[in-house]
Order: sequence, then C-alpha cells, then structure tokens
Amino acid sequence: MAGRRQTPSARSSPGSQTSLRKRNQQRVVEALVKVGASTQADLARRTGLSTATISNIVSYMAKNGLVSLTPTTSSGRRAVSVQLLTHNGTVAAGIGFGRRHLRVVLVYPDYTIAAEENIVLPQKYDPREGFDLAKEILTRLLEQTGTSWEALSGVGVGISGSIDRRDQMPVIGTVWAEWAFVDVVVELEDRLGVPVVLDNDANLGSVAETIWGLHGAARNLVYLKVGSGIGAGLILNGQPFNGATGITGEVGHVQVVPDGQACRCGNRGCLEAEASTTAMLDRLRNVTPITTTEDLVKAVLEGDVAALRVIEDAGRLIGRVVGDLASILSPEVIVLGGPLASLGDILLEPVGRAFARHVLPLVRDSTSIVASTLDDRGEALGAAALVFHQAAVRVI
Amino acid sequence: MAGRRQTPSARSSPGSQTSLRKRNQQRVVEALVKVGASTQADLARRTGLSTATISNIVSYMAKNGLVSLTPTTSSGRRAVSVQLLTHNGTVAAGIGFGRRHLRVVLVYPDYTIAAEENIVLPQKYDPREGFDLAKEILTRLLEQTGTSWEALSGVGVGISGSIDRRDQMPVIGTVWAEWAFVDVVVELEDRLGVPVVLDNDANLGSVAETIWGLHGAARNLVYLKVGSGIGAGLILNGQPFNGATGITGEVGHVQVVPDGQACRCGNRGCLEAEASTTAMLDRLRNVTPITTTEDLVKAVLEGDVAALRVIEDAGRLIGRVVGDLASILSPEVIVLGGPLASLGDILLEPVGRAFARHVLPLVRDSTSIVASTLDDRGEALGAAALVFHQAAVRVI
Repeated sequence: MAGRRQTPSARSSPGSQTSLRKRNQQRVVEALVKVGASTQADLARRTGLSTATISNIVSYMAKNGLVSLTPTTSSGRRAVSVQLLTHNGTVAAGIGFGRRHLRVVLVYPDYTIAAEENIVLPQKYDPREGFDLAKEILTRLLEQTGTSWEALSGVGVGISGSIDRRDQMPVIGTVWAEWAFVDVVVELEDRLGVPVVLDNDANLGSVAETIWGLHGAARNLVYLKVGSGIGAGLILNGQPFNGATGITGEVGHVQVVPDGQACRCGNRGCLEAEASTTAMLDRLRNVTPITTTEDLVKAVLEGDVAALRVIEDAGRLIGRVVGDLASILSPEVIVLGGPLASLGDILLEPVGRAFARHVLPLVRDSTSIVASTLDDRGEALGAAALVFHQAAVRVI
Repeated sequence: MAGRRQTPSARSSPGSQTSLRKRNQQRVVEALVKVGASTQADLARRTGLSTATISNIVSYMAKNGLVSLTPTTSSGRRAVSVQLLTHNGTVAAGIGFGRRHLRVVLVYPDYTIAAEENIVLPQKYDPREGFDLAKEILTRLLEQTGTSWEALSGVGVGISGSIDRRDQMPVIGTVWAEWAFVDVVVELEDRLGVPVVLDNDANLGSVAETIWGLHGAARNLVYLKVGSGIGAGLILNGQPFNGATGITGEVGHVQVVPDGQACRCGNRGCLEAEASTTAMLDRLRNVTPITTTEDLVKAVLEGDVAALRVIEDAGRLIGRVVGDLASILSPEVIVLGGPLASLGDILLEPVGRAFARHVLPLVRDSTSIVASTLDDRGEALGAAALVFHQAAVRVI
C-alpha cells in the first residue's frame, strides 16, 4: 500500500487547513492561467493572498516544475516573473481504459497535447494486460517526444464505473466484472513508479470539456457519457463535484422502466440497462448483424431503420433522465459524449425532445444540450489534466 | 425599481473580482465564527489573506455593524480585537410565507433567535395582504426586543416556488397562482425601507439546517420540503447551490407516474402532483372528512388506515426520487422538512425503503435520511441567516 500513500488526493479533508491551502494554490494557478506571467506582487493583488502565502506557493510550484521564475523589473524595482511551465519537458500522462480500447495521451502544463495513441483491445480484456500495454505505449510516447520519465509529473487514469473516493477503489456493481477488486492505483504505481490518480470516465470527460471543449466557460456543466455504461460528470460552481463518496452523477442507475432489464447494479430498468450501447446492440441482435458500437454508428449513418429506431428510443429515455437532472442542477450546458456523440443531431434530436418535455420550462430555456467535440479522447485528456490539478493543489 | 438595485445579490457574477472579494470575506466570517475574537494579524494567518485585504474587509464589516473593534495587545504590541457582533442590537428579520401561515423571526448575528411569531392565514391569501401583515408583525417584534428599524440589517423572505436568480422573480408554474408576477423584493422594500433578499423555501430550509439543525457539519446536505409543494434545497461543498438560474433542487417536477395527475408546471405525473400534501388530501377526499394538513397529521398519528396508506404511498414515491437524487449528488444527509416531518418514522420508513431500493448501494450506506427538528421554522430562520450571509459578502 506504499503506492497508495503517495496519492495526493488521499491527503486532505474538506474544510481543513490543508484544504484552505489547496484553495489558495488553486487561485494562484487560476490567475496564472488567466493573465500569464505575473510578479508575486501581481499575484498577491489579484488573489488577495498575502505575499508570504504567495511566496510559499510559488516556491513549491517552482520546486515541482510547475512554474518558471525569471528575473524582471516592476515599477523600477527588481522582481521575479512567475510563469506556468509549458514546453519545458514536464508532462502529465492520461490513460483511458475503455471497454474495447486503450488511449494514452501526454499533455504539457499549458494543456497542449504532446502526443497520443489509441489501440483497440479484445472485449473484456484482463485489466493487468491493459496496465502492461499502457506502460508500453507510455514508454513509446515519452521516447517519441524526447521526454524522460523524471519529467513525468504523474499519470491520471480513467475507468468506466464509479470510484469510491474514500479508498480509491472501483465500486462493485458499477464497473465491469473483471475490474472489480482491482486496485488500479497500486497496480499502476508499481509498474510506472510515478504517482497515479484515478477517476471515473464521465468525471474526467467533464474536466476535459472545461479545458478542450467548446463550453469551458460554463460554471455548471454536465458531461453525459453514453457508451456501454451511462454516467455523468458534474462541474458545479466551476469545480468537479464529488459529493460525500465520489460516486456522483450516476444517472445510469436511475430507473426508467419499472421492472425492466436487470442492471449490473442489482436494480432493474435502470437507464444504463435500457439505453446504453450494450442495451441497444441487444435490442438489434435478432434482426440485424450489428454486434459492435462501430457497426451501430455506421448503420445509423447509412439510414438503417432498426438502428435509427433503437437510437431514438434510447435518446428519449436519456432525455427524460437528463431533464430530471437539469431540474435539480440547472446547468448552463449538458455535453453528450462517448461513441455516439458523432451521430450529432440524430441522437440530440430525440434527447432534446424528451428533455424539453420533462424539464421545468425556465431551466429548459437556459440549458444547452450539445455533442462533445472531443470524440472519445475526453477521458484520457481529462485524466492528464487531473494530474496537474492534483499537483497544483498538493499540500505545501 | 430603485429598491431592486439595493439587493446585494444582484451585484456580482460568479468568477468575477467581486466574487473573489466575497469569497475572501466569507473566509473572515468563517474564521471569526470558529475561533471568536481575533486580531487582524490572526485573521491574516488563519485565512492566508494579506493584511491589507483583511483590513479592508474588517473596516467594511465594522461600518455595517457586523463586527466590533476593541483595542487589545498582541505580543506586547497594540492591536485591535475583531469580534462578530452578537447582541448589540443589530438583527436580521426572516419572513416565511406559507400556504396558510406567515412566520416572522428576528435573529442576532450569532444566530441566536431574538423573537418570532407565527400567524395562520386563509388559504390563497393575497400576497399584498401578507406583506402588510408581515410589516405589522415585524414592527411588533422590533418593539418587543427594543430594536430600532435602523438596527435592522435587512429582511430575508422565503416563498414556496422557484426564484429566477437572474431577475429575482418567482417562476411561473412553480409558485401558487396568486404569487405569479408579484415582485416580492420591490413590494417589501417599498413597505419596509430596508434591503430585502428573496429565496425559495426549500433553499432557505437547507441553510437553516446547516445552522440550527443537527447535521450542520455535513458538506453536502439536501433539505427536502414536502408540503403543498415539493422541492429540495441543496448545500453542495458546504455552500448553497444555485446553478445557472437559481432554479435548482426541483425534484417536485420529476415524473413519477407516466400520464398521471396534471401538475401546475404543465407536465403530468410529477412527484409534486402525486405526493404533495395537496395530492394526499385529494386522495382522501371521498372517504374521509380530512381537508387540511393538520387534520391529516392528526389522523395518521391516531392510526387512521386510509391516512396511513396515503402517507405510505407518497413516501414510496418520494423515496424513489430522493434515491435518484442521491445517486447524482451523494450527500451525507437528506433532511425531510415541512409539515409532515413531525410524523417521524411513519414517513421515514416508506421513504427509506424506496430509497434503498433505487439508490446505488454504496451511496445508500453513506447517506442518512432524517426528519428536520426545526418544525416549520426552517424557512423563516434560513431567510434571516441569508441576510447576514449576503451582508457578510457584500461588495467592499
């Protein structure tokens, strides 16, 4: 469990002094992202923090390769210009483990993407084989970009299913069976020798949308991933929302059909059991040769009537649940992600219709529903961003 | 509209410099609540804010009667002790307008209750008559406590139904018909001559629970008000959550019965249309002489079978929706408030059963469902607290 203790996220509880220091550091990062290079006096003015606090935060960040310090002058006096590091060699890696694929990305601290690779895997692959493969790809990407392992700040990992924030373990009943009881953080830290942070794919998708998506300015953003599972990542008041347990946005387990299909969570008729890509493929099994999500997307785009109907039915169920979600959270935008996002209006149209029918009218008029523009890269990108966010708020 | 412009809540947008100043001031208040009287140097240390920032905030709060400044010494040097003002005569008033009652409370800045009064009104009373009556009661309470109008920091008001945070107007379709198009803030500011802040009853109930309830330490708390309407107030990450519009927690408009009873929102089969006290009374109309919520509560406590069954059926619907809500937000605690809270386990039992059946198991085990201990006082109390919160974070 030595690896576990390195995980920054395990170190602090909300409301503590540590949490206060984290919030202060987050402010410095926000200011640097917004205005670029600044003197410490500038940062103090912009954040309202004391120069002593700013000095501590800047020292820590410099030591950890997050900012560069350059001598400059300010009002004729000597000062130090603080800048978020970009292409100085420091990178974060993001790994997204999908049902049948694995994506690794390398990202610089200014969020430009250094390199990425996606490979297809057999369905229900062994997670340990996935970890070994991820290491291979990561090694290759580091070599390609001339980056040393020492320059790797950390690795973010996304899996489908909930993560219990209290012990960083996947939650049984929400992850695929072969991932139950797998201690992803320890397994990967053992293999990679760098700190690993783990989160749920939908949560990471929401983080990626705020950085690389078209709606990053939204203070309240819901990222709804529709794939072999269905889940939402929540950005509330500008921050990822994790609730008491980390198990949030589980709209896939809202019941939409009383006594419907059995769900892996133990309930029946859950949105995920009725409207995930798995459920869609199941509905088509007896009348079409379609067996994969890729085939389904292709058939829909070719106008296959049965496939279109399955998308429409699923869209209606999704729209209804998303409508209820919006009546609770009133977000500025709901981003539909996952392998069906490329269908655009074909999916958005039935979703929007059911949404409009169920949500409160005023919330309907102030909430946009859009398709993600990140294809299936959101998870890995968000995982890499998480590394910087965790590092940026590491205890000082 | 002159009165409208005085409303502090209308002044800032999230993410702005104003919002940063608000957050800084909130920290000072938190520190003073937690440790009591402090020097400005102490406050700077505790909050990480600069002494200049602290000095600005303290001056503003002193000017507005929120803190007292007393000369003291610290490490042998002259200093000023800052203390949140308590019984110095400064008060906030809270007014709760219910379906058939009106409650006014006076609260000191340390949240002790100075005075309160509750009167019963005819159903569907004219809001303007309510405003006049509220002024009468408020005048009486100020006299009783020997408080001048000048010492009144402001008045918080709670009504049933959503408030659009963008224009501070009640949202049509969520408020009772006679409250539609009523500009509560302007009407009351005209009558009272002090700043008025308006919020939804469930939101205010959630604020009251964090201060006067038994679960105030929870970072994520849902207050579910079940009365003639049903709505939830959300405390997320320790703060009231308002989303993009202020229309949040609207679980009363989640559909629970396809094509069920028509709801005032325009939809059918909403939780509110099926499980509010109004819906319960409607179900009992033909078989019992029960016509008011008070009679319903009395009948249930006396073991009336029809009344018990109606509570159980409503409880199941409520539990299901609350289960879905918890799978989305994973709160530490859900507090049931409103006129049925006094039923305790008679209501909590069916709610808990349906909740357990619908929520994800791990969230179920980490979420408590309890009855409010504030009777029907939460709304007015929360409204008074809101005055201090708004004042404490007023632009400096």
